[in-house]
Amino acid sequence: MVTSIRIALDAMGGDHGPSVVIPGAALSLVRHPDVEFIFFGDQTKIAAALEAHTDLTAHSRIMHTEVSIAMDEKPSQALRHGKGKSSMWQALDAVKTGEAQACVSAGNTGALMAMAVFCLRTLPGIERPAIAAIWPTISSECVVLDVGANVGADAAQLVDFAGMGAALARALFHVERPSVGLLNIGVEEVKGLEEIKRAGAALKKADLPIRYHGFVEGDDVGKGSVDVVVTEGFSGNIALKTAEGTAKQIGEYLRAAMRRSFFSRLGAFLAQGAFSALKNKMDPSQMNGGMFLGLNGIVIKSHGGADAVGIASAIDLAYDMAASKLVESIAKDVQTFQNALQNGEEKVA
Amino acid sequence: MVTSIRIALDAMGGDHGPSVVIPGAALSLVRHPDVEFIFFGDQTKIAAALEAHTDLTAHSRIMHTEVSIAMDEKPSQALRHGKGKSSMWQALDAVKTGEAQACVSAGNTGALMAMAVFCLRTLPGIERPAIAAIWPTISSECVVLDVGANVGADAAQLVDFAGMGAALARALFHVERPSVGLLNIGVEEVKGLEEIKRAGAALKKADLPIRYHGFVEGDDVGKGSVDVVVTEGFSGNIALKTAEGTAKQIGEYLRAAMRRSFFSRLGAFLAQGAFSALKNKMDPSQMNGGMFLGLNGIVIKSHGGADAVGIASAIDLAYDMAASKLVESIAKDVQTFQNALQNGEEKVA
Repeated sequence: MVTSIRIALDAMGGDHGPSVVIPGAALSLVRHPDVEFIFFGDQTKIAAALEAHTDLTAHSRIMHTEVSIAMDEKPSQALRHGKGKSSMWQALDAVKTGEAQACVSAGNTGALMAMAVFCLRTLPGIERPAIAAIWPTISSECVVLDVGANVGADAAQLVDFAGMGAALARALFHVERPSVGLLNIGVEEVKGLEEIKRAGAALKKADLPIRYHGFVEGDDVGKGSVDVVVTEGFSGNIALKTAEGTAKQIGEYLRAAMRRSFFSRLGAFLAQGAFSALKNKMDPSQMNGGMFLGLNGIVIKSHGGADAVGIASAIDLAYDMAASKLVESIAKDVQTFQNALQNGEEKVA
Repeated sequence: MVTSIRIALDAMGGDHGPSVVIPGAALSLVRHPDVEFIFFGDQTKIAAALEAHTDLTAHSRIMHTEVSIAMDEKPSQALRHGKGKSSMWQALDAVKTGEAQACVSAGNTGALMAMAVFCLRTLPGIERPAIAAIWPTISSECVVLDVGANVGADAAQLVDFAGMGAALARALFHVERPSVGLLNIGVEEVKGLEEIKRAGAALKKADLPIRYHGFVEGDDVGKGSVDVVVTEGFSGNIALKTAEGTAKQIGEYLRAAMRRSFFSRLGAFLAQGAFSALKNKMDPSQMNGGMFLGLNGIVIKSHGGADAVGIASAIDLAYDMAASKLVESIAKDVQTFQNALQNGEEKVA
């Protein structure tokens, strides 16, 4: 017996609200005909957006909420005025009660994280959740975390991130022992890297269900040197945004180069199939969705500016994570990690 | 009366030593017919490499050294065995004595920084030097610092970096009041960013010869949102390497896309002029050279793996910095900064 997967959607989140969230859900439904949705938000707006999508309507329920969280609200503010009654909170709460198997929101990241921690709580032994991104590489994809939930991380937290990231890689890429690298800079004997060194020593010594690769540098991420790249959230966020920026910049160069001469315009015309394949590969909306890891439930944060394609890919990710029972396997892996570290007398922190 | 510029080259530095350093110098000489070189290193090897370059020979002197610093030596080790007598040290010392106006080395970064600080000393008021990179943007170029001299930076150091970066931007881009941004992540109310906030407050209030732009994120660097991006060295290095990795990755995608079909191959053939322009734009060797800022002298670190084109572009940079009397203007700007901050009662740290 296959149980269908139900996803709670914060219909009011993001820059565009229901006008992209509903079409995004419709796109994802085509790819996952068994999925069901609960839309949280303004009933009138959601119903209006649903009118064009009869298939989706048959798979959906609307839960009306009066309150929605603004994109620029501070987390503490959002918690104060949105706890219990906002579309964001209620979508998270549906995961807590088991009504839904995953929550997707394109809303304010800080507010979503604060509410998710408050509503769902962290897994046993996890002090702080992390945000993981799926990063395209030359050969395939890798998991990078933390990309912005926290600033700074001690050795124990980096080890937790390694455990959570490995569980995610195992679920998404179907590798038994994912390779894990710690993001570092290639300079020896500099101060301030003790945490990374201690995390590396712990990961190396303990008998863990990963292949510990050692340190990796910024250019190893896109090279695909490892399945999981572990870093604290400040550098991780800078790396992610820098890669996005570089991709956009090269796209601009390419367009400009192709307009240069008659021959380059003709060449670009003939090669347009290749270009659109490349464009898809570089399109951030094809890779949309930051995963909150370390919580008692699946939460996916879509880019605030995502279009329907982006929202659909965030929903796809939520679907895959729910189908692979990711929370259970993360909880198990984190436990294995913590036991292995204790047994190896390598308990850090 | 125009005085020629003399550059001290560590001929033994980098992965390839004299076999790329000499041809690199020859390339740069074509662009700067008045430049002179002092090559430090193994006389026999340098003389052999010079044989093919009669023009260059007329502009060069060789200073024989017995010792060279290995790429994997730790800075402390390099200082112990290379102080006084290595090609790296002597090239730096030529700047100290005024024999040369700039030093270029493709050697070990940590060793070069340690020796540079020891030999040249930092400018008055500067606690730690920074490494600055010239970063290509959609519209032109920007300065990013620190890209790896130090891990972590307090508010006062970030303000120093802003001053040094602004002086560099003024010299290289000829803008009177360069715009300056502090690299940050777009999450509100997170811990650990007090230093950046305090640096921002200081830059905002004091009457400085810059336009303070505020915080920038990773994707603003390539966008060219500001002339100078200020960050501590860990994130800066991660950002730089990540951008390099992303550029390579997209290059791979592009090549693969262009081989996909007959039409894409034909298109690529017709557009080859455009592609080679793009390749030049994305080629890291065209942008080679990390500048050590905050020292009593000009020191340029070339990539260790640079080819002759890369070495030549590092030398070009050294030439431009020497010609614009950068050290003097940095010293002046840093003084102005520190006075402005003190007068504004905004002295940080």
